[in-house]
Amino acid sequence: MASNAFGTQFRFTTWGESHGPAIGVVIDGCPPLIPLTEADIQPWLDLRRPGQSKYTTQRQEADRVRIMSGTFEGVTTGMPISMMIDNTDMRSKDYDDIKDKFRPGHADYTYQMKYGIRDYRGGGRSSARETACRVAAGAVARKILGDAIKVRGAVVQIGAHKIDRARWDWAEVGNNPFFCPDAAAVPVWADYLDGIRKNGSSIGAIVEVVASGVPVGLGEPVYDKLDSDIARGLMSINAVKGVEIGDGFATAMLSGEDNADEMRMQADGTPAFLSNHAGGVLGGISSGQDIVARFAVKPTSSILQSRQTVDAAGQEVDIATKGRHDPCVGIRAAPVGEAMVACVLADHLLRQRSIKAGN
Amino acid sequence: MASNAFGTQFRFTTWGESHGPAIGVVIDGCPPLIPLTEADIQPWLDLRRPGQSKYTTQRQEADRVRIMSGTFEGVTTGMPISMMIDNTDMRSKDYDDIKDKFRPGHADYTYQMKYGIRDYRGGGRSSARETACRVAAGAVARKILGDAIKVRGAVVQIGAHKIDRARWDWAEVGNNPFFCPDAAAVPVWADYLDGIRKNGSSIGAIVEVVASGVPVGLGEPVYDKLDSDIARGLMSINAVKGVEIGDGFATAMLSGEDNADEMRMQADGTPAFLSNHAGGVLGGISSGQDIVARFAVKPTSSILQSRQTVDAAGQEVDIATKGRHDPCVGIRAAPVGEAMVACVLADHLLRQRSIKAGN
Amino acid sequence: MASNAFGTQFRFTTWGESHGPAIGVVIDGCPPLIPLTEADIQPWLDLRRPGQSKYTTQRQEADRVRIMSGTFEGVTTGMPISMMIDNTDMRSKDYDDIKDKFRPGHADYTYQMKYGIRDYRGGGRSSARETACRVAAGAVARKILGDAIKVRGAVVQIGAHKIDRARWDWAEVGNNPFFCPDAAAVPVWADYLDGIRKNGSSIGAIVEVVASGVPVGLGEPVYDKLDSDIARGLMSINAVKGVEIGDGFATAMLSGEDNADEMRMQADGTPAFLSNHAGGVLGGISSGQDIVARFAVKPTSSILQSRQTVDAAGQEVDIATKGRHDPCVGIRAAPVGEAMVACVLADHLLRQRSIKAGN
Amino acid sequence: MASNAFGTQFRFTTWGESHGPAIGVVIDGCPPLIPLTEADIQPWLDLRRPGQSKYTTQRQEADRVRIMSGTFEGVTTGMPISMMIDNTDMRSKDYDDIKDKFRPGHADYTYQMKYGIRDYRGGGRSSARETACRVAAGAVARKILGDAIKVRGAVVQIGAHKIDRARWDWAEVGNNPFFCPDAAAVPVWADYLDGIRKNGSSIGAIVEVVASGVPVGLGEPVYDKLDSDIARGLMSINAVKGVEIGDGFATAMLSGEDNADEMRMQADGTPAFLSNHAGGVLGGISSGQDIVARFAVKPTSSILQSRQTVDAAGQEVDIATKGRHDPCVGIRAAPVGEAMVACVLADHLLRQRSIKAGN
Repeated sequence: MASNAFGTQFRFTTWGESHGPAIGVVIDGCPPLIPLTEADIQPWLDLRRPGQSKYTTQRQEADRVRIMSGTFEGVTTGMPISMMIDNTDMRSKDYDDIKDKFRPGHADYTYQMKYGIRDYRGGGRSSARETACRVAAGAVARKILGDAIKVRGAVVQIGAHKIDRARWDWAEVGNNPFFCPDAAAVPVWADYLDGIRKNGSSIGAIVEVVASGVPVGLGEPVYDKLDSDIARGLMSINAVKGVEIGDGFATAMLSGEDNADEMRMQADGTPAFLSNHAGGVLGGISSGQDIVARFAVKPTSSILQSRQTVDAAGQEVDIATKGRHDPCVGIRAAPVGEAMVACVLADHLLRQRSIKAGN
Repeated sequence: MASNAFGTQFRFTTWGESHGPAIGVVIDGCPPLIPLTEADIQPWLDLRRPGQSKYTTQRQEADRVRIMSGTFEGVTTGMPISMMIDNTDMRSKDYDDIKDKFRPGHADYTYQMKYGIRDYRGGGRSSARETACRVAAGAVARKILGDAIKVRGAVVQIGAHKIDRARWDWAEVGNNPFFCPDAAAVPVWADYLDGIRKNGSSIGAIVEVVASGVPVGLGEPVYDKLDSDIARGLMSINAVKGVEIGDGFATAMLSGEDNADEMRMQADGTPAFLSNHAGGVLGGISSGQDIVARFAVKPTSSILQSRQTVDAAGQEVDIATKGRHDPCVGIRAAPVGEAMVACVLADHLLRQRSIKAGN
Repeated sequence: MASNAFGTQFRFTTWGESHGPAIGVVIDGCPPLIPLTEADIQPWLDLRRPGQSKYTTQRQEADRVRIMSGTFEGVTTGMPISMMIDNTDMRSKDYDDIKDKFRPGHADYTYQMKYGIRDYRGGGRSSARETACRVAAGAVARKILGDAIKVRGAVVQIGAHKIDRARWDWAEVGNNPFFCPDAAAVPVWADYLDGIRKNGSSIGAIVEVVASGVPVGLGEPVYDKLDSDIARGLMSINAVKGVEIGDGFATAMLSGEDNADEMRMQADGTPAFLSNHAGGVLGGISSGQDIVARFAVKPTSSILQSRQTVDAAGQEVDIATKGRHDPCVGIRAAPVGEAMVACVLADHLLRQRSIKAGN
Repeated sequence: MASNAFGTQFRFTTWGESHGPAIGVVIDGCPPLIPLTEADIQPWLDLRRPGQSKYTTQRQEADRVRIMSGTFEGVTTGMPISMMIDNTDMRSKDYDDIKDKFRPGHADYTYQMKYGIRDYRGGGRSSARETACRVAAGAVARKILGDAIKVRGAVVQIGAHKIDRARWDWAEVGNNPFFCPDAAAVPVWADYLDGIRKNGSSIGAIVEVVASGVPVGLGEPVYDKLDSDIARGLMSINAVKGVEIGDGFATAMLSGEDNADEMRMQADGTPAFLSNHAGGVLGGISSGQDIVARFAVKPTSSILQSRQTVDAAGQEVDIATKGRHDPCVGIRAAPVGEAMVACVLADHLLRQRSIKAGN
């Protein structure tokens, strides 16, 4: 059944395969009168775009976005915003080899068993290429959120190499090909990934997304909690295997008194929290603190190293995936994670209006 | 806006507050002709029921479920199944004290700010009492899944004390008040929690849910992935701060070749995986392997130890929560986590029928 | 799949069968801080209640509503509002006779074929008894709409007997058992229905619902139009076979110039329409004029007169339905139609807030 | 909020404005392995295409559809099917005149008041051009329904001129520019519409859609009834003001015994109905008889005759709409109505699978 859409009030639907003519997204529910042109969207796509360093896939895609509907004279009209990105650098014959083989860790086997058919070229619909549409949607979500709400992402761990959080500097994130906020970690990661890449291997990563300026009150109990929706959104990104909010899995080892984010009054008469173990969400509702979410990205499944598998005919075969792939797909997941969090926030910002206004 | 329902084809809506007359759940979308009586549901509720050991809250609730609609002569009719559980042991005046104070780690502050009002008695709607309704829904979901699909949960860590996975025995889970699959961990946890309880403190935990017998093909790309829905469902449980599938966060440190679940043919001519790093989900679709999900539960926020907070009038106050609380709310989260996974699976089992049948 | 709910932001789910222990409705999405007690709901249920005149079924139901959740100290909290009505006057053995027979015009055959089972007692879920829940939901919807928006219904035709619209007086609607706005039509209808009733027959009717005070701007193109949602809502009422807005089917015979609702400026500087052929909806959006909807209700299918049918065993049989039935079920459909329109308006009022506020 | 989609399991979302670069539709939920190419869709679009006779608008649009995703080697893959139609014959300056004026009967005023902005060129999103996307979706729906289920539409009344139902011949529908099933009515309508057209006026119409071969059991009580969804779908078509099923509004005048569709057994051992007052739907569920739905289409609002209105500045003005318009927009509504009914049926066919299969 229908399953290619995300969100309720701010709802986007994506379409397209890795090696089809184009991919696209239709945003339904964007309020009117918001200034919006391609220039608001393209920079975010450029961050996710492949082929920009040796640490990401060498597929060359301009990822040029076109707005096909929903704006008039430079502002949104409240009508659906359709955006399209042409596919230009497809080498489908790279994939003839895996046409009938199920790559371990890939969706090949499950798609084939579920649907009885799959577009194997570049992974078809299961390709990470789909995430460009999420980034485009996220760019529109940011316009709804406004300048006061900032959603930023960073890679905080690649393999066993973690950043030093004491050196966290958001300004560094744009200065390296890893979205790394710790300048000292950059050369370490570069060396490490060079080895991974030359070895035809791949490695996992952890990404952290922080949303600041989020007002208290977003998120709806008990099933559409802000953190439930963030978890769903992040887990839906290709290769993501875990999501946590605030202290996350570490809270298992915390006592109630250590986990309590105590409150005090500020000089301006508003309350403030003394810590943020909760990651900005209490009872599924934003607390006004930074929303902090982390997600784990497994290593790219397409590797040059040979693995055992079976084919559609039931034969045991070995497989080594050719084609152009990211040695660490977690890197390019950072802008995608940001986009998903931005979309969840925009959705809940609009939802909250129906509660606050009027009554 | 509407936010108290979960699922699409198998959809349940819950209602009720901790100290209202009753709580309840309406299941919409259960297929007809499934044998169902209260006796199918009560045992699962009994597992979650409070007051059964000194390690859970001493609130005494019979949690007796009544089916109000949707069955006829012992089988489901395809009509909505309404179930109700009376609240019987409410001591609302225990809560007068916190009427105007925001308990750290609780939803008090966010509910008040979002809605401008809250039923503070026992936490109102934000109480873990709501999860009894999830367990009732999960019991019906299990009937849809049938005997071949088993959904089981266990607590695998309390504080820093992990089980030894080598000693995992599902049969042990029912033999102790901790849903612990490792008999040797039981006395350790008992001692540890005695200390926590006497200290007026609380502690976090990690729960693992395993679904076996799940056929290949459940889950829908790209936003209604099986693991996305599981993540949303588990994260929506009170106090949950993290969710992972399969190797989860540990995949960040795995290489592509180590993470690959290789495949070989079995004697019966069907393929099998040689490992299950993926936790039974590839590309958002079940692979036929065990579905493995873990979630972290933060320590109970209501503790006897005094914490700093503010009140509704903007005064700085201290708070120590009286009332009856679980020293480790993660324990009773195990049957709730099972229920949520069962509901997600039942939903996707029904969804998959529309794809497979006919065309 | 799930199908017992109505609305998006203001969403209600109903449950219960005619001869079960109770029926109920859960409202999800009602904003907080709206004063609400049973006294706000009961009067509307009393209007729909059976057994109040010889022109409706003689089943005696108190239809006493209880609010089970979602309010605190007399106001809504934003949490789901569960309401329940006990069934008290059930004579299930009246229905033994039709257990295996398919009553013409009834849902007996289609339920049996769709589900393979049906609760035949009193029509089970297909009974008009379910509409009491809609009326309860409508009462809450009215509280959201506020006093400035009035939703009123009237029966305008029974059999071939139409009211004289020139004599329309809303004050008359409450003065007779027919919700008739034309005092002169009342004795005519009374005589006519006496004959129908004594003859063991039944007759159809047309109901008109008018919503005044609706602000311009409610309704969302292109599929969630205000009139689309009203059409869906009204058509979902038992026995309804047609819905029209404004001049409805008569517009087929109108020229463009006659159908045009011309506009002029009013003394207060706001525009006004000179006519209302459109029934208050243009392009799916409310125009600020009265919303006018009409719906046709077929004659009660349960009649004493004998009809030809078949039974579950494939035998040809005759059937005359005993039990207590309305000679004109269209009469009691009036408060139900009002309620559905009120619910659609409340839903769209909340939806509109997310567009207007802020941006 | 999101409002540009239709359906649940078979769900389509449309986008695009009359004078934008293109319009399009994304179908989400089409099962895999259904043969589908542009050649399956184009013929249906050609039926709705403008400029084919003097009785429809003279805008010349090729309405050439392109499938952008969701098929592979000629069959569907279960992935979203994106289809796009370029806009080619736009004369936006025709509309400068109405930029600030609210055309009576049009959505100009309500869009402006709701959104604070509107793309006035050709009606923007409110243009009937959007319905081309519905027809494309309907073509895919027909492929799901298969050859055994036929959905056909015909115009049965233009102005006061009704067809003679005794002369109904489906084969005639394709032989005239009116989708008229009564050959004798064709010249009458031709003369009549010539007069309307020369007079710069327009006229309403009634369209009937009949679906045959629909199996018993489609449609879900109590809010997603088959007829509720058909009513919503048809009412959402531009200019539609009324919908009825079976005998529709005429049932108001029927007695219970006359309205009863009696049943008898057929030679093949299956039951049959002796009449079809119900229009193929009982209790919201298909009965196996022909589904019969009719809808009224108001006269085109854009007419050459001058009407009184106001402009955005609050000035009283007169307006006569230039541009190219249909003298009877009801004619081209016939293929659109068919498409909407086909989409509703496909949706419920898929929904029904989850009930029938397995349990």
